[in-house]
Amino acid sequence: MIIDKEKKETVKPERPGGFLDYLPGDFLAREKMINTISSVFRSFGYNPIETPRVEFLKTLSGEESDTGKNIFRILSSNDSEPLAMPFDHTVPFARLLAANPYNSKDRSGIRLPWRRMVVGPVFRGEKPQAGRYRQFYQFDADIAGTDSMMADAEIVALIFNTLSALGVKKFLIRINNRKILNGLAELVEIKTRDKVSKEDITKELMRILDKVDKIGLEGIVSELQKKPESDFDPAPFLSNEAVLKVRSYLDIQGSNTERLNKAKNVFSGIKIAEEGIVELEKIISFLAPLEVPAEFVSIDFSIARGLDYYTGPVMETILLDAKRFGSIFSGGRKIR
Amino acid sequence: MIIDKEKKETVKPERPGGFLDYLPGDFLAREKMINTISSVFRSFGYNPIETPRVEFLKTLSGEESDTGKNIFRILSSNDSEPLAMPFDHTVPFARLLAANPYNSKDRSGIRLPWRRMVVGPVFRGEKPQAGRYRQFYQFDADIAGTDSMMADAEIVALIFNTLSALGVKKFLIRINNRKILNGLAELVEIKTRDKVSKEDITKELMRILDKVDKIGLEGIVSELQKKPESDFDPAPFLSNEAVLKVRSYLDIQGSNTERLNKAKNVFSGIKIAEEGIVELEKIISFLAPLEVPAEFVSIDFSIARGLDYYTGPVMETILLDAKRFGSIFSGGRKIR
Repeated sequence: MIIDKEKKETVKPERPGGFLDYLPGDFLAREKMINTISSVFRSFGYNPIETPRVEFLKTLSGEESDTGKNIFRILSSNDSEPLAMPFDHTVPFARLLAANPYNSKDRSGIRLPWRRMVVGPVFRGEKPQAGRYRQFYQFDADIAGTDSMMADAEIVALIFNTLSALGVKKFLIRINNRKILNGLAELVEIKTRDKVSKEDITKELMRILDKVDKIGLEGIVSELQKKPESDFDPAPFLSNEAVLKVRSYLDIQGSNTERLNKAKNVFSGIKIAEEGIVELEKIISFLAPLEVPAEFVSIDFSIARGLDYYTGPVMETILLDAKRFGSIFSGGRKIR
Repeated sequence: MIIDKEKKETVKPERPGGFLDYLPGDFLAREKMINTISSVFRSFGYNPIETPRVEFLKTLSGEESDTGKNIFRILSSNDSEPLAMPFDHTVPFARLLAANPYNSKDRSGIRLPWRRMVVGPVFRGEKPQAGRYRQFYQFDADIAGTDSMMADAEIVALIFNTLSALGVKKFLIRINNRKILNGLAELVEIKTRDKVSKEDITKELMRILDKVDKIGLEGIVSELQKKPESDFDPAPFLSNEAVLKVRSYLDIQGSNTERLNKAKNVFSGIKIAEEGIVELEKIISFLAPLEVPAEFVSIDFSIARGLDYYTGPVMETILLDAKRFGSIFSGGRKIR
């Protein structure tokens, strides 16, 4: 197509808020970054795939019709079910896995364990505001169908190699385990209150701990002791004694091995936490063979990563010279 | 992310009709093709860009609110204007151009002439049906802001080089000019009827000629003579004499130079057609320096390519061993 003259301007050439154009300079810079990341992911054996920009709304939102996920819904009179744009790549990945079970007879379908990567835009139907995007690229690397902690160690190695390939030098991969956090809830004896379940209070405990970088230890202690504002408020409302236990948990210092040993003492007899500690020990033990230098990985008992999602190891990555960006590479294990 | 067990299946893992998953085999085959095409486009100096998957509906549909374009509209309470998904890359390109005029003071904006390429999905909100996709990739290469026929010749060279790089051997790039088709309308003396404009009848004439590959010369002749079914029917309703003129026009044979010379005779004194013939002569003369072998390019006075869009040279490309695919690489010049 060759355009000689500008279109007679009947419509203002506006772009909706939160969406970007990539002109050649930005496009090529981004392409270089995408290619670097994809190369590392592929060198670890992650297969590239693509799922569509449109899915059934019910696939994306599941049973809930919650708008908390800010889903862009699509008007279509041609479909039996409402359509929507994916807010992440994980849900379409789960749909793809479920739709293509491995068939040993004709060897069709997806054979587990399966490593897949995806690079592509995701969409958030939220209110446009400065500094937030409603379309942005996510890079995913996932392993489906394995119990081995080798998989989690591999993800740590993947993070280390990807950031190194991008020329990032000062970063720290922090690891924890939701099982240990659940063990902490047992340790401080969180119990179901009249109108709030033990699980909801535990989630709130995790959410508060996760904020240690932002509000500091004293901020956390104050939040943990705050009285519930209503019968439905999941505030942990910890006793002084329980807060001391949380402090001693968060105060665990030393090398990764020392931290894990100290945690064993703290959680002695609490089965779920002991399981979590063993899982972390395994991950740490796999890192040297994977040539991940010890100084890039730190057991950090404060991190929780999101609320409902994860059930095992969780990890996040911070830039040591730019902590304000928060975690730039995170994930965890989901057992459903 | 590591998934140990399948998600407890509460939602069927269905994909909406007309959308595809690309599993690794398909993804890598497609990636190879995309990379080949992009490399050729870039070697011609086309800058890669990307526009978002979401635009204002008014940008995409223009003044008209026609649903003929099958636009996927997006439900959003957060925007002042309705949003929608682009059905091609051309309209967002026009929006981008209009929004970034060149400013000679600070040298910001887009300096014309500008070559841009884009590879990405477009969306058609049509009824799902076999063999049609509602999301598919389009590869665009465009030059904005030049009057030179060198640009059109370059697009022909681009088509030749791209298909050659993809390993396609038997193809034909057919070129025509809308100015010659408008000249034909003058030649057969198409005039405004009571309820239908000359322009609408001319468009209908072009639409019929474009079908010669499908319905043959006799089919075309019969359509051209058909009586209008209502006052609003733009049927050309040509006389026997006019049909003879169309036949002699479509019967023009020989080498490209011979065809152009014969057309000069046919259209002697019809200024618009003479202009179109000169434009085609220029394009043909530029092809040898661009190293496009003559046998891959054919002047074809039947092709029209779409209805309203183009105003100058138009082109399409057919696979000689698989004509059933229709045109696999087409375009034209738009002056607005």
